[in-house]
Amino acid sequence: MKHCSHCSALVSFIVPQGDNRHRYVCSSCEFIFYENPRIIAGCLPTFGDKVLLCKRAIEPRKGYWTLPAGFMENGETTQEAALRETYEEAYASPQLNELFSVCNLANYNQVHLFYLAKMTSAQYGSGPESLEVELFEEANIPWDDMAFGTVTQTLQRFFEDRKNGAMQLHHIDF
Amino acid sequence: MKHCSHCSALVSFIVPQGDNRHRYVCSSCEFIFYENPRIIAGCLPTFGDKVLLCKRAIEPRKGYWTLPAGFMENGETTQEAALRETYEEAYASPQLNELFSVCNLANYNQVHLFYLAKMTSAQYGSGPESLEVELFEEANIPWDDMAFGTVTQTLQRFFEDRKNGAMQLHHIDF
Repeated sequence: MKHCSHCSALVSFIVPQGDNRHRYVCSSCEFIFYENPRIIAGCLPTFGDKVLLCKRAIEPRKGYWTLPAGFMENGETTQEAALRETYEEAYASPQLNELFSVCNLANYNQVHLFYLAKMTSAQYGSGPESLEVELFEEANIPWDDMAFGTVTQTLQRFFEDRKNGAMQLHHIDF
Repeated sequence: MKHCSHCSALVSFIVPQGDNRHRYVCSSCEFIFYENPRIIAGCLPTFGDKVLLCKRAIEPRKGYWTLPAGFMENGETTQEAALRETYEEAYASPQLNELFSVCNLANYNQVHLFYLAKMTSAQYGSGPESLEVELFEEANIPWDDMAFGTVTQTLQRFFEDRKNGAMQLHHIDF
């Protein structure tokens, strides 16, 4: 960030008065630009005992498998974001259930939220950001080709909880 | 937003190619500026059967009561943000427990997260953003002077759950 998006003057990276963190501040109009973590919302869609995964058609991690998820947009709820991403990436419209994992990626300024979601039919397909979309039994999950640690750990917790007979909310810090 | 923060050229509010939403896009360097919801993280601190509330010393809602909470910063986890805000506003360092409410304010592009938190002593005080900080029994909660709907509804759910003997995670959409 070099310029103020309001008045185009140069910005400085300084600690504003009364603050304790560095912010970009306009040298002319003095507007303070706060930067905050972003939310990635997604689903862990199941059909019977199978889980729906998407092979990514785009970078980062093109060609690797993920749960359907993406950046939450302004004007929507976390649940709406999770369902929208699931439709966009996997053409699936599952029934949304409870929040299952809150993954904090402090170094990336991201929070990933995964909701459990039940598919009432095996209707799905590859959206523009997916090369393939497929239902996997636990024994066939492509663990070595997962796109993101948040997805791997969310799936691991899911299969553990399923074995133990009780789903619970997991906080996973990276 | 009028100017590109990278090159200072004027931005346009258009739907970029391959997208389906309006974004600010630089007319010169073509950088796309995504805007996403922000997270407010906070605690519902309890000491025995009492709840810790803060009377706000700043706008918005100066003079009204709130749970300690504020904007999550880059580089921290949701739990760290909740505890930092609780210390900054109420000089309290409770033991963080489970996530209790996820409040979606889609019209304000905010997600509020409140964690249950247990105070092991009655140590607290007014931080610079608080006029007063006080422990309240349920019967004395100043319901008519609450700062935010997310706080009111989170507290209502808490007292209901406590009456029912089981805390659960609540999604509250506004």
